[in-house]
Amino acid sequence: MAGTSLISPLGGKLVNRTGAKERSAAPAVSIKLSAWEQCDLEMIAIGAMSPLEGFMNEDDYNSVCDKMMLSSGIVWALPITCTVDQATADSVSAGDVVQLNDDEGRLLGYLTVDSKFTPDKAKQATKAFGTDDLAHPGVKMMMESGDICLAGKIDVVTPRHDPLFTTHRLTPVQTRAEFETRGWKTVAAFQTRNPIHRAHEYLTKCAQEITDGLLIHPLMGATKDGDIPGEVRMKCYEVLIENYYHPDHTMLSVLPAAMRYAGPREAIMHAILRQNYGCTHIIIGRDHAGVGSYYGTYDAQQIFDTLEGTGLEIDTLRFEHAAWSKKAGGMVSGKTFPKIEGDQIFLSGTKVREMLLRGERPPVEFTRSEIADILIESMKG
Amino acid sequence: MAGTSLISPLGGKLVNRTGAKERSAAPAVSIKLSAWEQCDLEMIAIGAMSPLEGFMNEDDYNSVCDKMMLSSGIVWALPITCTVDQATADSVSAGDVVQLNDDEGRLLGYLTVDSKFTPDKAKQATKAFGTDDLAHPGVKMMMESGDICLAGKIDVVTPRHDPLFTTHRLTPVQTRAEFETRGWKTVAAFQTRNPIHRAHEYLTKCAQEITDGLLIHPLMGATKDGDIPGEVRMKCYEVLIENYYHPDHTMLSVLPAAMRYAGPREAIMHAILRQNYGCTHIIIGRDHAGVGSYYGTYDAQQIFDTLEGTGLEIDTLRFEHAAWSKKAGGMVSGKTFPKIEGDQIFLSGTKVREMLLRGERPPVEFTRSEIADILIESMKG
Repeated sequence: MAGTSLISPLGGKLVNRTGAKERSAAPAVSIKLSAWEQCDLEMIAIGAMSPLEGFMNEDDYNSVCDKMMLSSGIVWALPITCTVDQATADSVSAGDVVQLNDDEGRLLGYLTVDSKFTPDKAKQATKAFGTDDLAHPGVKMMMESGDICLAGKIDVVTPRHDPLFTTHRLTPVQTRAEFETRGWKTVAAFQTRNPIHRAHEYLTKCAQEITDGLLIHPLMGATKDGDIPGEVRMKCYEVLIENYYHPDHTMLSVLPAAMRYAGPREAIMHAILRQNYGCTHIIIGRDHAGVGSYYGTYDAQQIFDTLEGTGLEIDTLRFEHAAWSKKAGGMVSGKTFPKIEGDQIFLSGTKVREMLLRGERPPVEFTRSEIADILIESMKG
Repeated sequence: MAGTSLISPLGGKLVNRTGAKERSAAPAVSIKLSAWEQCDLEMIAIGAMSPLEGFMNEDDYNSVCDKMMLSSGIVWALPITCTVDQATADSVSAGDVVQLNDDEGRLLGYLTVDSKFTPDKAKQATKAFGTDDLAHPGVKMMMESGDICLAGKIDVVTPRHDPLFTTHRLTPVQTRAEFETRGWKTVAAFQTRNPIHRAHEYLTKCAQEITDGLLIHPLMGATKDGDIPGEVRMKCYEVLIENYYHPDHTMLSVLPAAMRYAGPREAIMHAILRQNYGCTHIIIGRDHAGVGSYYGTYDAQQIFDTLEGTGLEIDTLRFEHAAWSKKAGGMVSGKTFPKIEGDQIFLSGTKVREMLLRGERPPVEFTRSEIADILIESMKG
């Protein structure tokens, strides 16, 4: 049954850690946050990571690693920490306020330190990422981070300097307000870090058919090398929506989160974030948030079956791969149409890349020509 | 979150009123049930109308008409009654057992009369059908039925003599067993009383994408004149499924219910019945179960918003009209693609009928050629 008001944020209310004033006297210690931490700071500040109000302490860190929940019992899948080197940690005591800067040394906000602890990185790798392989981009980033975590609430002056995509950078408060204005009670979120080809367009539209609206919600925080640049992706989304989506039922906004490629655990995080943004459903495809072959095809779907009663209210829409079927004369998936030799128009990522680099459009059944043209143009030079 | 076992029948357990033995001495009074009542008897007997165990008494009748619930407080949308003429009613007293026959005088079962009452047909028309217009086929049938209702539990010997479609005539016990065998936790039901064209194929596949399986569940009980015969429809379903659906995710079974064309109230009944069959979702389109222009386009979708806490657990999947869009190169709906003059391939029912009568196939974007051929063949002579 459809609800009568928007879905609750995780933990019951949206956190807001923005609006802090710059201190007249700068704290003695300032920290340059990593790319991940800058994203996390912004996400915490705007309430996208509710109920987090800051960086995790040791209890929450261990509880999240071991039990996939905060020490309060609320679901949480990945540690959100602020790491520093030993020397910096030694210069800070509980109760101190530390300044948090971005990588250009600009003030973001302050951390009121309530504790310090040494993260068990080997455990974190195995529990959160399911692997300690340094070839995994998320594991590598985590292993290279500082050896001590500073925990405490944050008070943010500027969540992000020179943010990109400002016309499509809605906070959870803003997406929720927009959903209310539009009268959307059910909203499906689509997480992506790639241009949308026909297959994903199809999945989003299946989701759209059974909800009031679709939020195309590309992750635009830190990603790994080799991913298509945000500006190019954004242009693809805008052009695709303009030409092939219904404006009354479609919204585009960016998720300023970092990508950890943690597969099933990150799928849960993606769901939590979208619940905070006011979405009632999230599309979870095969190998969601995966990289390489670290995760089983359906791990990121099945993990949601273990979360009853942990506070996660958003529903998953679990999809198979989709492709154009010549016999069906339309988009199909492994659930809706049997596989017939040679019937489906499918190209590997490598193949598509090669075509685009040569200036060739993939078949329109695979990629809309408008999107192919943007990608071809972006690859020139 | 997906459940771990099948959805509960309405009221908690499946009713079974079959298995009665033929009495050695026939009761003094026997009744020839109407086409509607024969369908209702079968539906009650096999548990499809759980928690009903027989035909309604006056309390339930009034509660259903006035409050859309049984006197127990459980949701119910349409009166399910056994009507007789005054003379027959006068010959029966509370406690009597009455024999129930089909229209060929064959024994179906017995009704143990617990009460008699005079239905308020004017109220029933207005409440259940939203109109007292005798041009409405459901209102007409109801108005022409007997003037007195006999209420009581039924004990059924033979739910239906010479049933059609026996290979696809599963009871709720049987559909539930099959869902368990297939490992389906979420099942979308598709109610239909027409051949499936591309538009409805598209809706069913959207539903199928987000559930474990699809139950194509055509209503095959009493329908009105002018509806396409069951045998023809059944052939259409079989051929369509064979050619265009995935066998692992698709089931076909008939619903031996009568069609009342009661729009929103009947949509609720369709949902209740499917919950009893073990389905977690039901597709509700525009003007579901409507006829003529008695109901608002979205009435049968919106009425479900009023049913929180009444025992209905099945979820609705609410769809718009769908059609092939030339610009989109695929099936779209009013939610997924803007309307552009001349873009959609849409034919009225009348137009399709004319084409088929002339032996012409509609465009494949509207009707699969295999289905067109069956319909063309059926219209010869």
